Amino acid sequence: MKNSFGNNVTLTLFGESHGAAIGAVLDGLAAGIPVDETFIANRLSLRRPALKTDTARKENDNYTILSGVFNGFTTGSPLTIVIPNEDTRSGDYERTRCLARPSHADFTAHEKYLGFEDYRGGGHFSGRVTAAIVAAGAILLSALQRAGVTIGSHVLRCAGVSDTPFSLYPEKEIERLRGKSFPILDETKREKMIAAVSKAAAENDSAGGIIETAVCNAPAGLGEPWFDSVEGVLSHALYSLGGVKGVSFGAGFSLCDMRGSEANDEFYVDERGKIVTRTNRNGGVNGGITNGMPVVFTCAVKPTSSISKLQNTVDIIKKENAQIVVKGRHDPAIVRRICPVIESVTALVFCDLISARYGENALAELKF
Amino acid sequence: MKNSFGNNVTLTLFGESHGAAIGAVLDGLAAGIPVDETFIANRLSLRRPALKTDTARKENDNYTILSGVFNGFTTGSPLTIVIPNEDTRSGDYERTRCLARPSHADFTAHEKYLGFEDYRGGGHFSGRVTAAIVAAGAILLSALQRAGVTIGSHVLRCAGVSDTPFSLYPEKEIERLRGKSFPILDETKREKMIAAVSKAAAENDSAGGIIETAVCNAPAGLGEPWFDSVEGVLSHALYSLGGVKGVSFGAGFSLCDMRGSEANDEFYVDERGKIVTRTNRNGGVNGGITNGMPVVFTCAVKPTSSISKLQNTVDIIKKENAQIVVKGRHDPAIVRRICPVIESVTALVFCDLISARYGENALAELKF
Amino acid sequence: MKNSFGNNVTLTLFGESHGAAIGAVLDGLAAGIPVDETFIANRLSLRRPALKTDTARKENDNYTILSGVFNGFTTGSPLTIVIPNEDTRSGDYERTRCLARPSHADFTAHEKYLGFEDYRGGGHFSGRVTAAIVAAGAILLSALQRAGVTIGSHVLRCAGVSDTPFSLYPEKEIERLRGKSFPILDETKREKMIAAVSKAAAENDSAGGIIETAVCNAPAGLGEPWFDSVEGVLSHALYSLGGVKGVSFGAGFSLCDMRGSEANDEFYVDERGKIVTRTNRNGGVNGGITNGMPVVFTCAVKPTSSISKLQNTVDIIKKENAQIVVKGRHDPAIVRRICPVIESVTALVFCDLISARYGENALAELKF
Amino acid sequence: MKNSFGNNVTLTLFGESHGAAIGAVLDGLAAGIPVDETFIANRLSLRRPALKTDTARKENDNYTILSGVFNGFTTGSPLTIVIPNEDTRSGDYERTRCLARPSHADFTAHEKYLGFEDYRGGGHFSGRVTAAIVAAGAILLSALQRAGVTIGSHVLRCAGVSDTPFSLYPEKEIERLRGKSFPILDETKREKMIAAVSKAAAENDSAGGIIETAVCNAPAGLGEPWFDSVEGVLSHALYSLGGVKGVSFGAGFSLCDMRGSEANDEFYVDERGKIVTRTNRNGGVNGGITNGMPVVFTCAVKPTSSISKLQNTVDIIKKENAQIVVKGRHDPAIVRRICPVIESVTALVFCDLISARYGENALAELKF
Repeated sequence: MKNSFGNNVTLTLFGESHGAAIGAVLDGLAAGIPVDETFIANRLSLRRPALKTDTARKENDNYTILSGVFNGFTTGSPLTIVIPNEDTRSGDYERTRCLARPSHADFTAHEKYLGFEDYRGGGHFSGRVTAAIVAAGAILLSALQRAGVTIGSHVLRCAGVSDTPFSLYPEKEIERLRGKSFPILDETKREKMIAAVSKAAAENDSAGGIIETAVCNAPAGLGEPWFDSVEGVLSHALYSLGGVKGVSFGAGFSLCDMRGSEANDEFYVDERGKIVTRTNRNGGVNGGITNGMPVVFTCAVKPTSSISKLQNTVDIIKKENAQIVVKGRHDPAIVRRICPVIESVTALVFCDLISARYGENALAELKF
Repeated sequence: MKNSFGNNVTLTLFGESHGAAIGAVLDGLAAGIPVDETFIANRLSLRRPALKTDTARKENDNYTILSGVFNGFTTGSPLTIVIPNEDTRSGDYERTRCLARPSHADFTAHEKYLGFEDYRGGGHFSGRVTAAIVAAGAILLSALQRAGVTIGSHVLRCAGVSDTPFSLYPEKEIERLRGKSFPILDETKREKMIAAVSKAAAENDSAGGIIETAVCNAPAGLGEPWFDSVEGVLSHALYSLGGVKGVSFGAGFSLCDMRGSEANDEFYVDERGKIVTRTNRNGGVNGGITNGMPVVFTCAVKPTSSISKLQNTVDIIKKENAQIVVKGRHDPAIVRRICPVIESVTALVFCDLISARYGENALAELKF
Repeated sequence: MKNSFGNNVTLTLFGESHGAAIGAVLDGLAAGIPVDETFIANRLSLRRPALKTDTARKENDNYTILSGVFNGFTTGSPLTIVIPNEDTRSGDYERTRCLARPSHADFTAHEKYLGFEDYRGGGHFSGRVTAAIVAAGAILLSALQRAGVTIGSHVLRCAGVSDTPFSLYPEKEIERLRGKSFPILDETKREKMIAAVSKAAAENDSAGGIIETAVCNAPAGLGEPWFDSVEGVLSHALYSLGGVKGVSFGAGFSLCDMRGSEANDEFYVDERGKIVTRTNRNGGVNGGITNGMPVVFTCAVKPTSSISKLQNTVDIIKKENAQIVVKGRHDPAIVRRICPVIESVTALVFCDLISARYGENALAELKF
Repeated sequence: MKNSFGNNVTLTLFGESHGAAIGAVLDGLAAGIPVDETFIANRLSLRRPALKTDTARKENDNYTILSGVFNGFTTGSPLTIVIPNEDTRSGDYERTRCLARPSHADFTAHEKYLGFEDYRGGGHFSGRVTAAIVAAGAILLSALQRAGVTIGSHVLRCAGVSDTPFSLYPEKEIERLRGKSFPILDETKREKMIAAVSKAAAENDSAGGIIETAVCNAPAGLGEPWFDSVEGVLSHALYSLGGVKGVSFGAGFSLCDMRGSEANDEFYVDERGKIVTRTNRNGGVNGGITNGMPVVFTCAVKPTSSISKLQNTVDIIKKENAQIVVKGRHDPAIVRRICPVIESVTALVFCDLISARYGENALAELKF
């Protein structure tokens, strides 16, 4: 399966930036999960352009649920969400259709699809498709939330400015982040980040960053040794997002300079009699399987590829050198808008893992 | 599927550290690929303990191919490799069976398998299983090599000492690395790395590092948008290796501090008329799909979890606090030995991607 | 994956009989296949109620392609077809919601989905969903047709009346069947079948039958030994259709009374130098793999479960005995309307097999 | 995945008739299932040649469990069973290697694998591989048995002689069949069947038959609508067996001549308050999902393809007409020996369905 992910709970994506609609089919989720349409709308609004520096494309995200919900609850049948495209200006793209935008999929799509790809606005490769991920993710997140499992993320770094990392047990921090359109732990850093992004934008350029995410209260025992390690499955899902170029768990790349005695997380029995670790440098996963500590990971997000600076490139039809200024309406940094998307694919992975371990109705019956 | 990976070409792993044998089933590989048993043996020797600092466990890796090879060629049927376990000293583990080794899978396996796991030497979680990956990987690597696709890796960093990174077109560097038991580009760094690791070992501790890998001459157009991006599939496979805690592509985490104008790889038409990029900060992948440039990525490898320093831990049966000194024979750093394993899972991914794109016999008929 | 089928080319189904819409996502089909909307409409009309004996529910099947088609060709991205529901009369069902219709999924859905299923008109279990299969199937059939592979089916038996079976090479027969709303080889039998069905309908009852299907000019070498035999994959797909209760290949159940010397298909080299068989009692498949002869199989279709005769049943909420007369608008026999559906899932299987063997673009580039 | 089957519990097959060994990897089965080696040996003996009419090839089936069992229980890790080949006489085949045995896979394997297939004794296509299915199946069957789910089968028809079909609740009949090497309900028919097979053998020919199988006490709610219907998944698994050319559920092909009022199974509440049906013409499956009644199906088994009568065929290398007398040691009918194989793949499907619905440890913890 190509545009689908998950074994027991699966998400299938479809749609193009300038086509009729984008959408998703969510299959295998337990029947009986309440579907809160306001929550879906709120989650979509977190992903929508909001800041002055965001794209000027107006996205209302007037989603429709075509199937799989009845009387406000999931039915267990495939749940289809469709979000019609509005305010598309394909003309912007028509002018540059033969010019491969650097670091975009224009060239690779042309190679793969023999020239039949819908090239308008990146087609199926467009970040626009993430709206469908967020809409489906809202349902998955509320299923997990109802079961006590919470997921949150924040902009750990953006355009050279750093936020404070999550603490060992970040549940309260996650609560504080909820609903924030620019999620950050140290409020003093937000304006600095926005200023740095605005500066890049003013210079016809863009900026990147790092997102830190935590999953709290997931049961121990999820995942598999070897190929279906929690890290493997999560990173697979996270790398579906175009801007992500690095994924690491726990202390991540900084582990490579530690000694084993620093990197190891010592176990102890806490006051409630639960086996926990004193540190969490392994990000809640040992041998591919959750150990009950928060699952913590970071995603490196590259600077937006669309910049209005003049760049060298090629004409993929004529196979000639050329130059391009990427017009259209683009974000100079997607770190803010990618947070709900990351949380959504993370929720997909955890719903899938929980269903595999505890059965197809576990998330509805709260039996785990 | 849990211990299997791949869609069209798949690898299934089995075996425990102190059981009868470990092994792998390789399915879906084209019929007609020559199987060179000397090459398999050589690859296995790269993974075997060799340095003074490596584990003292003697592993002969006398593998047997039980099926799928006939008259020296793959038959297209499942290819099964079995490597019997020798020189196992389960006694070392029996003494500590209730004590969860920090950052090992002892605790998580106990949670997941309800206490029925084979706990001896890490059981199925043991790094010993990677010998089967390397044996199968040798066949996959020679299939790719025959088709002109080369894969190589080196220790980019170990115990705080750095090697030179790959150049833009690292084919010749890969050739130089071939068969090296401690693969490194800057030969002056090898002794420094070994000294740093020996120091850690002398202090009853261990060290980590970073491996850089490159895949050269893979055709453009491999992979899928969204969930089956080359980055997603590769990272999924790479994270099956216990010590890997970070995976990044191209410039990876350093992209987050770049501007778009730095991070973007400009296209041009080279002297042979091929569309290529001037830089490769995206690691040969745009929009999830190969662009024909080398696919380059790094893996963060944590320091070996087994250390003979005293550590705090718990008794998982009595649920009490305890202390442990991990006995047994262990490597103070696995960076050297993990290189052929990383190359093997990388070869699995590329054989799978090529078979999906060009058909089940493409690797034999060299039709792509 | 639950509501999806296929490895390289996949179809995902969604929708409920009385919900907003039904539809399908077709993924993995080669880019560059022409999409003929008139052909899709014609295929849908074959499945639609037409005869006096068919259901009176008016289905316009005004489908929309939401994604995956650009300038009249497939793009290689997921192709989504949505067919809005019209003329739904849920009231008919509301009255009987607690009464499990015998041989329907009312009871089993209630068990599986804990009472949260959309029970109106069978919900997601409704034959209505097959309209989406037929719409997607039209695209798959024309991709195969373009490559010279033809699929046809006819009503071999209905309400006790038999048609002539396919000849050894049924290509011309398939051509004659094309576009026929009641596909039959011996035209003299059509009125007899319709009369027999009408008689059943007049007695508030329903009738069943057998469909024979043939796939001509598929290349030899498709399929796998053991689990992914052509018979296994095809039967898996065919049994997704609610009314199918038997599937057999070649001479099928009558093979069990033959001697080996009768059942075996002797090979010979035909005038064009091609290896073929004199008979086709194995239905074009040896050892799970196509041998180049037509792939021929039959599906036993049970009489429509919805009948307006009084039946004993239970109230699934109160868990009490009860009686039911199934109201609503139903076909007394679905043999006619199931033909295009069977052809569609067959086309899915063959597009998938061809893509696995010859690569993802083989159906567009006609390279096999 | 090609030689693997199952989503949550999976079986992977490997090996060739005249290679070193055949075997299987069973993955995803719950930890904590007792493994009874005597039961495995007994099950293997049911599949072994026993009657005078069976093949004279001596198969000791001295299987070894290489992994996945510890202290007599499954560990949850991949369970690998290897059965070395003994008493292979490849010479028998060498003589005829270019001659395609009619209705065997010699020709199709040659097409698919480009001439690199192991042709000795049918290679990977050999019925020999079913010994591995039976060995793994023994563990699956005892897991189900422990959970109260019983599976049994009998020779419903052989060489024109019929046995009595299963009754509505065949649990006691299944008990009586247990351990029988020629499983039949009406004992008076056994000798008639054997006589009819012997007659075919005496005439250098072979005979076919029908196997009826029942699964008792599986919970209601297993399976999925559409593609993963219980019928679809079961038939997929059953068609992996080379001799199977027809699969039908409940009343099967005879449903096509029934009226709906006959074919429908009326529900009622039985004395224990359980919802059951008065008849079971739908074979325990409604809308693809188990309804709690026995799941009953039949498999049409063609006469053994290997016969020592002279047959016309082709030389697949020279592409010339030729003649063949199939030497070697073959069964004139496999109906007896296929019963434990059918029961084994059925057990695989039900373990998989139960794990999907109730979770990965459900079969060990008996939580369903």
